Amino acid sequence: MNDQQLVILLNEMTLEEKIAQLQQLAANFYEGAESGGQITGPMEAMGITDDMIINSGSVLGLSGAEQVIAVQEAHLRKNRLGIPLLMMADIVHGFKTIFPVPLAIGCSWDLERTERSAEIAAKESAVSGVHVTFAPMADLVRDPRWGRVMESTGEDPYLNGLYARAFVRGFQGSDLKGDVNRMAACVKHFAAYGLSEGGRDYNTVDLSERHLREYYLPAYRAALDEGAEMVMTSFNTIEGIPVSGNVKLLRDLLRDEWGFDGVLISDWGAVKELIPHGVAEDEAEAALKTIRAGVDIEMMTACYVHQLPELVASGQVEISLIDEAVLRILQLKERLGLFENPLRGADPVAEREVVFCEEHRTAARELAAKSCVLLKNEQVLPLAPGQRIALIGPFAASGDILGPWSWTGSTEDAVKLDAAMKARAGVGQITVAEGSGIDTFSEELWLEAETAAQAAEVIVLALGERSEMSGEAGSRSDIRLPEAQRELLLRLKALDKPLVVVLFNGRPLDLSGVYDMADAVLEAWFPGSEGGAAITSLLYGDENPSGRLSMSFPVAVGQIPVYYNHFNTGRPLGAPDADARYVSQYLDIPNEPLLPFGYGLSYTTFDYSEPVLSGDKMTGDQPIQISVTITNTGAVAGEEVVQLYIRDISGEVVRPMKELKDFAKISLSPGESRELTFTLTEEQLRYYHSDLSFASDPGKFELFVGPNSRDAKARGFRLELAAVENKRHVLS
Amino acid sequence: MNDQQLVILLNEMTLEEKIAQLQQLAANFYEGAESGGQITGPMEAMGITDDMIINSGSVLGLSGAEQVIAVQEAHLRKNRLGIPLLMMADIVHGFKTIFPVPLAIGCSWDLERTERSAEIAAKESAVSGVHVTFAPMADLVRDPRWGRVMESTGEDPYLNGLYARAFVRGFQGSDLKGDVNRMAACVKHFAAYGLSEGGRDYNTVDLSERHLREYYLPAYRAALDEGAEMVMTSFNTIEGIPVSGNVKLLRDLLRDEWGFDGVLISDWGAVKELIPHGVAEDEAEAALKTIRAGVDIEMMTACYVHQLPELVASGQVEISLIDEAVLRILQLKERLGLFENPLRGADPVAEREVVFCEEHRTAARELAAKSCVLLKNEQVLPLAPGQRIALIGPFAASGDILGPWSWTGSTEDAVKLDAAMKARAGVGQITVAEGSGIDTFSEELWLEAETAAQAAEVIVLALGERSEMSGEAGSRSDIRLPEAQRELLLRLKALDKPLVVVLFNGRPLDLSGVYDMADAVLEAWFPGSEGGAAITSLLYGDENPSGRLSMSFPVAVGQIPVYYNHFNTGRPLGAPDADARYVSQYLDIPNEPLLPFGYGLSYTTFDYSEPVLSGDKMTGDQPIQISVTITNTGAVAGEEVVQLYIRDISGEVVRPMKELKDFAKISLSPGESRELTFTLTEEQLRYYHSDLSFASDPGKFELFVGPNSRDAKARGFRLELAAVENKRHVLS
Repeated sequence: MNDQQLVILLNEMTLEEKIAQLQQLAANFYEGAESGGQITGPMEAMGITDDMIINSGSVLGLSGAEQVIAVQEAHLRKNRLGIPLLMMADIVHGFKTIFPVPLAIGCSWDLERTERSAEIAAKESAVSGVHVTFAPMADLVRDPRWGRVMESTGEDPYLNGLYARAFVRGFQGSDLKGDVNRMAACVKHFAAYGLSEGGRDYNTVDLSERHLREYYLPAYRAALDEGAEMVMTSFNTIEGIPVSGNVKLLRDLLRDEWGFDGVLISDWGAVKELIPHGVAEDEAEAALKTIRAGVDIEMMTACYVHQLPELVASGQVEISLIDEAVLRILQLKERLGLFENPLRGADPVAEREVVFCEEHRTAARELAAKSCVLLKNEQVLPLAPGQRIALIGPFAASGDILGPWSWTGSTEDAVKLDAAMKARAGVGQITVAEGSGIDTFSEELWLEAETAAQAAEVIVLALGERSEMSGEAGSRSDIRLPEAQRELLLRLKALDKPLVVVLFNGRPLDLSGVYDMADAVLEAWFPGSEGGAAITSLLYGDENPSGRLSMSFPVAVGQIPVYYNHFNTGRPLGAPDADARYVSQYLDIPNEPLLPFGYGLSYTTFDYSEPVLSGDKMTGDQPIQISVTITNTGAVAGEEVVQLYIRDISGEVVRPMKELKDFAKISLSPGESRELTFTLTEEQLRYYHSDLSFASDPGKFELFVGPNSRDAKARGFRLELAAVENKRHVLS
Repeated sequence: MNDQQLVILLNEMTLEEKIAQLQQLAANFYEGAESGGQITGPMEAMGITDDMIINSGSVLGLSGAEQVIAVQEAHLRKNRLGIPLLMMADIVHGFKTIFPVPLAIGCSWDLERTERSAEIAAKESAVSGVHVTFAPMADLVRDPRWGRVMESTGEDPYLNGLYARAFVRGFQGSDLKGDVNRMAACVKHFAAYGLSEGGRDYNTVDLSERHLREYYLPAYRAALDEGAEMVMTSFNTIEGIPVSGNVKLLRDLLRDEWGFDGVLISDWGAVKELIPHGVAEDEAEAALKTIRAGVDIEMMTACYVHQLPELVASGQVEISLIDEAVLRILQLKERLGLFENPLRGADPVAEREVVFCEEHRTAARELAAKSCVLLKNEQVLPLAPGQRIALIGPFAASGDILGPWSWTGSTEDAVKLDAAMKARAGVGQITVAEGSGIDTFSEELWLEAETAAQAAEVIVLALGERSEMSGEAGSRSDIRLPEAQRELLLRLKALDKPLVVVLFNGRPLDLSGVYDMADAVLEAWFPGSEGGAAITSLLYGDENPSGRLSMSFPVAVGQIPVYYNHFNTGRPLGAPDADARYVSQYLDIPNEPLLPFGYGLSYTTFDYSEPVLSGDKMTGDQPIQISVTITNTGAVAGEEVVQLYIRDISGEVVRPMKELKDFAKISLSPGESRELTFTLTEEQLRYYHSDLSFASDPGKFELFVGPNSRDAKARGFRLELAAVENKRHVLS
């Protein structure tokens, strides 16, 4: 149907049909779903009538081709105008083939494999009947207490934007209607959800509009520039107003300024949550504020269906507000081809062939290997195949390696570390012991572990957080490993054997008592379905670790927030003329994180030549080329992530000490050199000024090329702009 | 001189004389000061010439009547137009008679004694030649990692405003010119310095303008409404611009909107710090931006004297900008009477009589006793006079109880706890042992402590932070007591004797391993010159503790920021329909602080009647009266701080769960009852809306009356406004 036909359809709808189209309900409301069609208990409390279900627009969390087909067919039999349901679900890092959690993917710096992971997730989801995924999450994160950092790709606005685009391309492809193996992407959580105060989920967010625009909005914008069909509102407040009712953010900025005309959905219950937030006295006011702000779909509360009829009747809500929301939903259904093909990709036969197939699992294994980050290695890794290994720890044989947001995955089917290591090295080489629980210590488990360790040449200690310790509502005030596991490590350390720690977790941890104790540390995150295999291939050197942190690891929880792109302050630590005391510092720990953004080791080493610039002046027309030669100076092939940063020495507002502007992930054989040339343009030097204009300032800059945000080589240059471009700079 | 005469004087000044008037230098630049008049080393590096000193406007940190007189007289001999110097110093909580640190004073809820402390500080300073103090600090604080919380009165904007006013009244009196025993107050640090990111001093601040206006600005404004003569800029950025160069904040808001026409001074070096901040390429740009923003006096860097002549000559700075700054400085000198009486209160004879006199020390002791907060008491306090006490710990006999910002005080003259306790109970009753260092543990000290403890009936353990662990640049990432002291406590606990902990510190601490272990905890803060005497009188029940926390004590550093006037969020913990997991919480600790704002114990108990309201509706004309009867139900007389809070159930923006609106500190004999009546008006319900208008919203409110922010009894009422006042409320 073209837009005109959709408008005709819209005009045929009654007000109740229109409003119900804005309602999203979980699967159990629907005939055809397992345990569906029965409204009981809390569902009844929602006051949802049969008519509301029959006229509703979308379903949350339903998948499985047969079920989806049954629900859609039952729906179309009952829906007066034959408007199909949209099937939406949280497919965050894979459907059945679970990829690493997004924070791990963020450490891959591999946009192609990221896109491929999303394409595979889309294919498995699509044949299972899903039309829309609530992903990617483009929230910038700086507080590892927040459990949902695992769902973000990290702390850098530029890198997050690249990942968001890659996810959107992978989910949606280039022809959403024609390619039924794709699904629509819903970028979330708009906006700045990652700044939840104290790292406590759902908590208050407060920041200046300038910061919002410069650091927090770009990655959402990147997803939209890539064509993401939908946007989800975040749970938090911005400037004191919950986002779902925030006219300035949703209507003025997202709709009007950015021109977003896709479907805007509330997060679960977020419309009604205007009441506990305290900006709505009742459901009517909640519905009024959110429809005015431009929220099209209300997820899992029923303020719209209950209140909008009366609000329209009383004239408080113009019918045009309803119509525009409904039309956007109908347009999305049309763009997904649902009017012609309401079952879309749902196909029980294809489902059995495609879902969790070997090809997909291989892709998952490959991305997992690219996502692990080697944090430390005192000549103990890679393991030699003949070494006797004691594999100890609560994650040695655990299937809890998929991480949060993997509800469609199977921990049983996950490749566990013990199985993979035995398969690689031979059963007899690997002795496995649990050692401790995640957060319980027992002498019995310890004795078993001690015995295993004493018989081994190398101890591989698999530690971490259970998946419920991160993810949504998974905030922790103490981000160390649980004490039981630190105790286990301490006791094993006393045995004075080479000690390799493999970490399974959803956030940067405080590694006190871990990083300093271990001879090697491999950060495996939650690596997904093929995690054990990926880790094993890295431990034995079949692959060479190439992941680089996309989020800083703090020295301690008391250092939060710590992030590479911070400001200098007026009294920077370490300045030549700085007073020893009166500088910006902590008395008890350094300012720098334990492990900085961009950091990661390899089994080989890379040498960087001095960067050579095409000139020391940039203009609006004339970019600067930066050439650098990277040489693999070690004995094995490896991949290096060559990173380009800038610093604007003096701006109209304070500028970060470093800002990532480009990078290249390259593969080099032993002894191989490669010259890389980056091009840096004036456009890349622009930022938001105090008047919110986006422009560059002439003057001094530095650029840095290196293996991470800390150890990069600096070069200076100047930006010179023609007089007409120059007006911002006070003294020029 | 009247204003016209001052303008005539201004017009007689050369440009160089004018600009030098904007310069503030430390005492050692000046002839007449001890080791003054010699420009050497770093001073020479500043490029300050003799002429600049002769024409400079103010001196930093000089006191002592003889010295000040010598400097002023030498200056007037050389200064062409006979313009006297302003003598400014950091007199924060007393001059020689040191009062408790401001955070402790904040716990007194005693505005009269607060004012009196400032009056005494002014008198001692004035006779010693000081004209202006860099106080009060009105920074709202929510992050105890920040060392400078000790200099704030706490986390509540309303209470901070009351204290700021009391300090200003005390410092300035009602006739600054006539009363030479007073000094001018400089409210600081404008603005929002207390929000330094990560609790790291001088660090970035970012917040919305709405938050800034509602929470951070009111206390500065209160000080100005009370007549504070000066304002100091803060070190931090606001919206990306260092405050000292922030036109929006200083020129538009402070000068134009608020009409502040007093002297605005940079903090130490903050003008030149625009360069490391990265908003000025050089001193010229730094000077340009700060003079444009409206900074009159540059403290301890020399951008103005070096750069303004050329900036004026080139037309980049209008001479009117210089003139207005100079005139404001001359006006302040005139308001202090310096043209007629350049020596003002400086008087060596009076100095010897007044400074640290008995009357002042008595006032310091009384305020210290009012500032201590009894945090826990399991029937061990007060001590009985006959009890054998082991007084143990690094603060048992320490003079380091004055706290930061007491440079004019003497730790030697401070009343130490051991001396005071021996004086009270008899030398033989008190055995003193150091136990441990502040952060060093030794078995030798331990053995001595153990012996003392074993012979005692009660252990009094004096623990804390040395004063350098808080104050400016005194940020800590770990806010527990140092491990050595926790170890000492742990070992003493094992002796199974009644254990009283007295804490000396400059910030709310993480009391893990202290609060749970001790039978009683008395928070003494840095109590000042008479600290030991005040604490002793509380320990023995000669006085009854009446302090109430003005800043929350977190459960752990990972809970920061935690403050009572937070928002509900959309998913509050503990709501009746809340999901067990998907609420705003930490997995490992509660949301609530260990000890909330307003909390403190007494040796007696108080009963609160149910609050009775004059009605359940408020209008613009008709306030609500709240009556409550408080009864002393214990056996001794005591003081109670009766606190009144409100909650706006639904606003245009989210509203705090509680907001302090009023309180009364009352004294009751055993068995005595008193009825208190609070009046709550529509004006007290106003707040900043999203358009920054300041107004109330009709609708539901709750009020709470109780002994602290946690345990208060609630009553509901409605605000009803006439239609014309009603326009803000969407649904009405």
